[in-house]
Formats: sequence, structure tokens, C-alpha cells
Amino acid sequence: MAKINPYYGNLKEGYLFPEIGRRVAAYQANHPEAKISRLGIGDVTEPLTPTIIRGMHAAVDMLGDVKTFKGYGPEQGILALREAIVKLYSERGVNLDISEVFISDGAKPDVANIQTLFSLDNKVAVQDPAYPVYVDTNVVAGRTGGFDDEVGGYSGLVYMPCRAENGFLPDVPKGDGAQFPDLIYLCSPNNPTGAVMNRRSLEGFVEKARHNGSVILFDAAYNWFIRDKDLPHSIYEIPGATECAIEFNSFSKFAGFTGVRLGYAVVPKKLVAENSDPEKLNKMWNRRQTTFFNAASIIAQMAGLAALSPEGRSECRGLINHYMENARIIREGMKSKGLTVYGGDNAPYVWIENPDRMESWSFFDKVLDQAHVVVTPGSGFGPSGQGFTRISAFGHRDVVEKAVASIRDNLKI
Amino acid sequence: MAKINPYYGNLKEGYLFPEIGRRVAAYQANHPEAKISRLGIGDVTEPLTPTIIRGMHAAVDMLGDVKTFKGYGPEQGILALREAIVKLYSERGVNLDISEVFISDGAKPDVANIQTLFSLDNKVAVQDPAYPVYVDTNVVAGRTGGFDDEVGGYSGLVYMPCRAENGFLPDVPKGDGAQFPDLIYLCSPNNPTGAVMNRRSLEGFVEKARHNGSVILFDAAYNWFIRDKDLPHSIYEIPGATECAIEFNSFSKFAGFTGVRLGYAVVPKKLVAENSDPEKLNKMWNRRQTTFFNAASIIAQMAGLAALSPEGRSECRGLINHYMENARIIREGMKSKGLTVYGGDNAPYVWIENPDRMESWSFFDKVLDQAHVVVTPGSGFGPSGQGFTRISAFGHRDVVEKAVASIRDNLKI
Repeated sequence: MAKINPYYGNLKEGYLFPEIGRRVAAYQANHPEAKISRLGIGDVTEPLTPTIIRGMHAAVDMLGDVKTFKGYGPEQGILALREAIVKLYSERGVNLDISEVFISDGAKPDVANIQTLFSLDNKVAVQDPAYPVYVDTNVVAGRTGGFDDEVGGYSGLVYMPCRAENGFLPDVPKGDGAQFPDLIYLCSPNNPTGAVMNRRSLEGFVEKARHNGSVILFDAAYNWFIRDKDLPHSIYEIPGATECAIEFNSFSKFAGFTGVRLGYAVVPKKLVAENSDPEKLNKMWNRRQTTFFNAASIIAQMAGLAALSPEGRSECRGLINHYMENARIIREGMKSKGLTVYGGDNAPYVWIENPDRMESWSFFDKVLDQAHVVVTPGSGFGPSGQGFTRISAFGHRDVVEKAVASIRDNLKI
Repeated sequence: MAKINPYYGNLKEGYLFPEIGRRVAAYQANHPEAKISRLGIGDVTEPLTPTIIRGMHAAVDMLGDVKTFKGYGPEQGILALREAIVKLYSERGVNLDISEVFISDGAKPDVANIQTLFSLDNKVAVQDPAYPVYVDTNVVAGRTGGFDDEVGGYSGLVYMPCRAENGFLPDVPKGDGAQFPDLIYLCSPNNPTGAVMNRRSLEGFVEKARHNGSVILFDAAYNWFIRDKDLPHSIYEIPGATECAIEFNSFSKFAGFTGVRLGYAVVPKKLVAENSDPEKLNKMWNRRQTTFFNAASIIAQMAGLAALSPEGRSECRGLINHYMENARIIREGMKSKGLTVYGGDNAPYVWIENPDRMESWSFFDKVLDQAHVVVTPGSGFGPSGQGFTRISAFGHRDVVEKAVASIRDNLKI
């Protein structure tokens, strides 16, 4: 008799976005005249740029011609794209070998699958609030217990609170050895808070991780939105980080590839775990990807190459500027409303402290009802998100302006 | 200290295709004048068809226009493609609900990831010889012991030998209850033997699986090559199979998408395991895909939709006919050489019994040296492949004809 993975039973129902959808649909049904503006989802809205579109058409034509047709590519990605990514890192003073770069169909699958390289008896730490994938994948793997409603989190998981008091930057967990977490997920710029870890903050984690033989899983998917020159884009800008960190990145937000699917993971050869041989984790990820995966779509890869060309990067900077101007409009609008505002200066998310720390879903309902704007309740990202709200800067300009004006004019606080 | 997944240590090095590459490179270096023909890899060679190319260009243009741009799609795939696949099944008398069809980036990731829905204490059975992914993914999950060189297989795994004596169709394992395997991988048409399971053979598995509450993981990626009208394309053509089987399929070989990446899995709502509620496995796979995956590339999905249009299907039949004519040429050529030949009539692989059952790698070296043709040693697919050779029908016509002529004229047997 086939036995089911028992740890799926520990997983709380995927709650956040389905529940948002349910409430918005119900409100719309009761208020058919309401014109609802959506700033709830972190999805790009602007079309792909001309250079990328040209690259895609060329890739399609290549597949239609017997002289240039390509079938299976290397599971790790095409050489030219891996080289382009190595070059990208070198601009920040980070020297990688091509064999350390693995192209994928996005940062989400990579951050979800990376935990399979590690045994079940690792203590896992996540920022709170955080992108739910870090948590959920470890729950179904069996590295946590069930959801504790009182705590608002899973037992056995180390939550690193990110609150106003610490500037939304996680404190390095106390203790050493068995007390210190073995696997540490960090996301900077952060989804949902928009906070960016500075060098000092990252140095603290790198030092402690190296001392304890822990591995940092660093999600840099939003690094393209950093404008402050002093903030690191990659954890590898911190000396020693190649010995203790795996980094994840994405074309989704940089080039508008949320539907196209392209990302990459860096697994340095110097990275060690469990006093392993050097290169062991790099070889394991290579084996994992060649066994479970069969490369990102060749069209997406060639489009990624076009995005990293000088023209492509210049155009993609235009996309980033569009969303960051949206973020500025949201920040200014919320500030002028008297709200306490975080993030949004080096990230496409604005993090609002609800008036009187109003419960997240209550504030969601209030904004929907009074201003006809969809936002995201902070509590959906973890217990420390309670009393906060995420506003996404992804949207057409007119939608953002209308939403901000409606909150200004109609929300009663 | 981060601890490594110990089961990666049980995995034998990925041996087959790297070793082929090494031997071919060494031979070419020593014989620079030799013109080598390659029939070793199961990868398509013919360009995508005009209807598919048009569909792809249209998808690219859609992404370049603000009025039609799409970002994240549903993780389960776009509705129109899921509907087209439901319709495809209905042509074979199989009625599926859209919620039972999950679009993916290929059959390989799906057959690799499906085992994560099940606990580690399941007994796993595979055909021998078989596609290595079924085995390797269960090894790193921890459902087997180490590789036993004497047996030529992993301990704790049930191998179902497929040999000339049983027409290369696996016998249903004996016994019931704890003796019977819980998870059973079947691939039909088979890679590497080219054998196709008939109704009676599948009925035997379905009956025994239902009786024991086992789950069959049915890889139908090559079903498009079946020409015999009496052979089932889908396990769901067998009554009761929706209660005990998950099916995997692919656009790779049908439409030439090995580099484009598109496949689908069917997880029926009626499927039960461990006396679970109905729908439980369907819901678990949905949760798995929404947590670990973020949909196949929208361009690949729209290209798949074009491939399933009447014009697309007619053109793809042309691709299949091309490879099947290759298979006929290989079969006839090998027969006229006096070799014993299997497969290749309803599958793109021809399975050769080596003269005097010569050891697979020795025969590989002999064919390379005397005929300058690359084939695949049968032993690379499992212990029962020893003494056999796979010849792939994927190739340009002139390459296939030249290779067959060279074996006929130059191979000394």
C-alpha cells in the first residue's frame, strides 16, 4: 500500500492570495459599481523590452530552421548565459567560475529545491516576515513540526523577527554549535518589508555562519532595485561568503520574466558543509539539477542573454525606474496621509505600519471598502507581519496614481 | 553545522552519457579522419513545424505589447492548454477533469518529483532496463540502499526484468500486502527497449495495484510513436486505472520540444493511497506544484497549444513519421546484418541483441571502431540491459542511412 508523505499534513493551507481573491470577489459582487485597483500581487505589468523581444524572435527562428535547430541543452544552462552572469558578478568585484552558476526556470524553484541537498536534522532559520516558500518547503520535507496557532508559526523553526526596532533587519541568532541554526534563509532586498541588509548586517551573518559551519541561502531576486551605492547586491561582496552561502537570482523582476521563467543559483566550489570536501555541495547541486531538471527553455535563456546585453540592460533599467517611481509615489502618498512608511526606496515593496497597528486583515478590508484598493496583509508573511501591510509598486502608472489618490481622499484613519 | 543529505552518497556516478562522450572523444582524437555518425542520444533533430513557430512568434509579440502582456500564469498551466489536453484524452475514451491535468516543464521533472508525495517507507519497483531518473530520484530520497556491484543494482529496489523471454514486458511482481511494491514505475513505449505494454499486460498491473493500494507511475512520453491500433496510449484506457495510476506525458518527442520544455502530469481525483480521502493526492500534487514550481514558460505553453491544433497535430505526425521511417531503416538494416532486433515498430528506439550477447561496452567500442557509429550500451539502463544495445531513431535521414550502411559494410560479426 502506497504511503503518503506525512509532512504535507503539517502544512497550513495556502491562505494568503486565495483569501485575498475570495474577499475581493465577494466585495465586488456586493459593490458592482466599485472600480477596484490592485496593488496586492508582486507581479510585473510592463511589456518586455524591444531588445528582449528581438532576442526571443531570433530564438524562435533558430528552432524553425534545420540548420540551427537545437534540442536538449545542458541542464546547467547554455554557456553564453552562464558566462554573461559570471561577467555580471565581476562588475561587483565577485569572481565566480562558470561551473558555479546554474541557470534555472526561476528563483522560486531553486530556493524551494535547495533544501533537498541537506539532511532532515538541520535547524532552519527564516526571517519573519518572509516569502512563504522558504518555510513551506521545509515543512513538507519534515524539518519542522506542525503549525502552532498561538505562536502563529511552525514549531521547530527559528523565526528571526524583523521589526521597526531592528530596522527590519534580522538579528544574528544567539549561541553557537547546536544552538545556532544550520540553514539560514535571508532575502535582501526583502519581500515583503522592502528592507535591504547593509554590509555590517551581512558581515555578522557570514562571520557566525563560517564559525558554525552553517549555510546561508541568500535570495537576491530583488537586488536590481537597489539604488543606494553602499548597499550590497550580492552576499559575495562580503569576504568569506563564498565559503558559507548559496545565492539565488532571477530575471523575473529585472526583465519582466515572471511568465517567461528564468533564474539562476550560485553554488560556490569553496562552500563547505558538515566538514565536507570542497566542491561537494557544488557537485551535489549539479547532480540534483541533471537528475531532476532538464534546463530552462532555450527561448527564455536566449532572451536572458539579450536582457544582459548593453542595450537590454539599459532598457531593463527603464523598467526598474518605472516601478521605483511607482514606489516613490506610493511612499509619498502614504506619508502625506500620516502613515508610517518603510521600504520602497531600494525595493519595489512599501511596508506600512497600520494605524494603531490595526490587525492586518481588518485593515485590508477597510482599505478595500473605503478606497477600493487591494493591498496585502502583512500577517500573511509571518507573525511579525501582524499590524503591517505590503503595498506593491508593480503596476501601470495610472493604476498606482489612482490607488494612491483614492487612499488619500477616501481612507478614514 | 549544516548536515548533508546522506543519500546522495548512495548514488552511483552518472556514468552512461559522460562515458560515451569520453570514449567517442578519445577515438576521434586517435582517428582524426574518422567521420562518426551518432545514434546514441534520444534527442530530436528536426526543426519545429510552421504552425508551432507561428504560435511562438505570436506569444512573443503578446509579451511585447502592453495591451496583451502577461506575467505570472497559474502554476498548473494556462486553462486553454489544460482543456486541449482533456480533449486529447477524450479522443481515447478517457474522461478527465481539468483539475486533474498539471502542465509542467517536461516529463523528466514530473517523474523525478512525484516521489516526494510519498513517504520514505514505500517499496519501489522499476522496469529493468529503465530510464535512470526513476531510480536515481528514489536513491537520493533515501528509499534504497547503496549500489550493489554484484547485482548491478541498488539494494532495496525491486527490479522487474524485461528480457526476450517475456517480450520485454515486465511480469507483475508476485505476492501481496507488504510483499508487493507500493510504487511501480512503468514506461511504455519503453526507453530503452522500444517494447509497448499491451492491454493484458497493463490490466495485470492495474488489478494488482488496486488490490494492494499501490500507485503506478506511468511514463507515456513516447505514446505518440504507437502505430498498432490495439496498443493503449494511456494507462487510463484500462478500467480502474484512474484509481491507481499517475500518468506523465511530454511535448518533447511529439513536437520536438526537448529544448523548449513542456510536459504534463495527470493526477486523477479518484486516485487513492494509504486509504486516503479521494482527491488527496490530487490536492497534494497541486500544493507541491504551487509551492516548488512557477508554471512552464508561457511561450512554451502557447507553442504547445499550437502543436495541439489540427494543423499542428498534422505537422507533428510528419515529425513522428520521419523518425519512425528512420526506425524502419535501422530495423531492416540490422536484420539484414543478421542481428536479432526488437522494438522500433511502435517506438523510436531499436533494441539489439549483441552477437553472442557480447558485453555492452565491448560491442559499443567495436561498432565505434569498425563502423564509426555511436550507439548506447544497454547495460547503462540496468542489469538486464547487459548484452544489448540501444539504437536511437532520432536523427537526420542521411545520418541514419549512412550509419546503417556503415554497420552493414564494415562491422565484422
